[in-house]
Amino acid sequence: MSTLTLPPVVDLHDAALTGRLQHAIDNKTKPLGALGRLEALALRIGTILDSEAPRLAQPQMLVCAADHGLAARGVSAYPGDVTWQMVETFLAGGAAVSVLARQHGLALTVVDCGVRRDFTPRDGLVVRKVAQGTADASTGPAMSAAQCAEAVANGMAIVRELPGNALLLGEMGIGNSSVAAMLLARLVGHDIEACTGAGTGLDAEGRARKARVLRDVLALHADAAAPLDALAAFGGFEVATLVGAVLQAAEERRVIVVDGFIASAAVLVAQALRPQVVQRCVAAHVSAEPGHALLLAHLGLDPLLHLDLRLGEGSGAALAWPLLESACAVLRDMASFEAAGVARKDAP
Amino acid sequence: MSTLTLPPVVDLHDAALTGRLQHAIDNKTKPLGALGRLEALALRIGTILDSEAPRLAQPQMLVCAADHGLAARGVSAYPGDVTWQMVETFLAGGAAVSVLARQHGLALTVVDCGVRRDFTPRDGLVVRKVAQGTADASTGPAMSAAQCAEAVANGMAIVRELPGNALLLGEMGIGNSSVAAMLLARLVGHDIEACTGAGTGLDAEGRARKARVLRDVLALHADAAAPLDALAAFGGFEVATLVGAVLQAAEERRVIVVDGFIASAAVLVAQALRPQVVQRCVAAHVSAEPGHALLLAHLGLDPLLHLDLRLGEGSGAALAWPLLESACAVLRDMASFEAAGVARKDAP
Repeated sequence: MSTLTLPPVVDLHDAALTGRLQHAIDNKTKPLGALGRLEALALRIGTILDSEAPRLAQPQMLVCAADHGLAARGVSAYPGDVTWQMVETFLAGGAAVSVLARQHGLALTVVDCGVRRDFTPRDGLVVRKVAQGTADASTGPAMSAAQCAEAVANGMAIVRELPGNALLLGEMGIGNSSVAAMLLARLVGHDIEACTGAGTGLDAEGRARKARVLRDVLALHADAAAPLDALAAFGGFEVATLVGAVLQAAEERRVIVVDGFIASAAVLVAQALRPQVVQRCVAAHVSAEPGHALLLAHLGLDPLLHLDLRLGEGSGAALAWPLLESACAVLRDMASFEAAGVARKDAP
Repeated sequence: MSTLTLPPVVDLHDAALTGRLQHAIDNKTKPLGALGRLEALALRIGTILDSEAPRLAQPQMLVCAADHGLAARGVSAYPGDVTWQMVETFLAGGAAVSVLARQHGLALTVVDCGVRRDFTPRDGLVVRKVAQGTADASTGPAMSAAQCAEAVANGMAIVRELPGNALLLGEMGIGNSSVAAMLLARLVGHDIEACTGAGTGLDAEGRARKARVLRDVLALHADAAAPLDALAAFGGFEVATLVGAVLQAAEERRVIVVDGFIASAAVLVAQALRPQVVQRCVAAHVSAEPGHALLLAHLGLDPLLHLDLRLGEGSGAALAWPLLESACAVLRDMASFEAAGVARKDAP
């Protein structure tokens, strides 16, 4: 196992580019600011792609899947077998993310990062399995440091091989809203109660039990404070692979479309390692999981959609995708006041 | 001028259909309710189109434009000439709605309902001009009863000629946020202050002046309480044409995608005449105009997007369109638990 080398992620701040983009937006034939948050989105994408006429090319939906030893502790409403069953459904084209990726022309790659079952090889499946699921974080670290580094490196390698200038983050793993909750609690400092939600559908009692389990797990790994230590302690392989994917995509200056609570937790770890990754991120939505809004607020990301989604898979990222395309189209294709011969606000 | 005959708009409530749709949604491979408000949208579209596998066909973006005599009273930040200039920009393909309609394959029809300028005929332009702008509502009714009836009938006739099963509402008319504010105040009973916003970009002083003007206009037409009387009193030709378009589309059971404050005001008048039209409506977004949220709440419509848009033109309807397509795709194409062989929540 070689030592993990994280890529550099430079500051994109460029006052001249910002000025040119803002001028272009303000000169479109519409009242100043009338396209609201779509204008901020256009500014962000123009900044990431370093273009006043940005064009999103070959968008990649990356769905990372893995199992969690902690799932045996009753933190999810669904049995662990659902992880591999949903991977099969992604690949068969019948899951929400499959349907939505097809609708929007997003190339779908499903990664077995550590599912507790082996899959027959096929198109769209990448096997980068670190182990058959993580260990139970309630009795020891979910991953060893070496496993964690391997999963992060996998994510970097996968993105290096993908074409295009936009990456959409998706995930699957029964138990992984617990992982996201613990990463949020540990890295941001919120109480675990505020970070714990219903996941796939726990009732109030189940959620209270989940919060108690997670509080004990956090206490067991009280010394896991550094980002990669926390990631190794709590898991999981799909989150660690996404952390690597985010770092690599950020270095390459791709637009990163963040999905729900779990994908956002991967961005949180990446941001703790390389703060400038957030400059490349667009938050697709804020989910019904209570921790998600806290996490996005910490990252300073303003979600595009508020649809009470709580599915994961990348479904929210796919749903928001056309708004990114719209922001680019507005910047590229709308006429300026001058070109259209339209009177301005201060005209007689 | 023949008497206006409004179409019947029947109640779509059908418990059996609702049950079948809800069953189909609940059996998709996802936790119950995990697609949040997209599920409610799928239910609504399935109900309108009377199908468990709904398919949106040949969507029509209808942008109705007209001028307002009241604009001379300084209620807008922009000069009245911008109405015809923007119509030219719609037709030239350079406006926001042009760009967004192209992005999503929406057929764009621009209607001259009463612009104070004549246009050379061309593809995509329909001329149903009642007059060269409305009269100044601060000195008398904006339209005569006959003009109002003519504009409503125009809207019905236009939709009758359009193909497809979905209608997106757009509008252009310098001064028309004043019209929407007065219709909201009169038909729902809110104080005009709460209904009055910045429109295309008034400052606080301009907005206060606008509210004072509108309060006087409301007082002048204190007896215009019935929906069509209020519409005639306040205007405008584009709003009245949209009222007719909404009524006709509702009778034909098309999906109606409501845009911003002004399009919603047309739905308000249509709903006052035929309450069941709202069952066919999807609110694309809630705009930055303060009256819009009040208006949607009155109609009982939950907006899909919260992007602080305040452009009109149908831009918000176009931005939300892919979500309607997604809702249909989920209902049509997602696998059921049984078909996918995925364990349910209560499985062992």
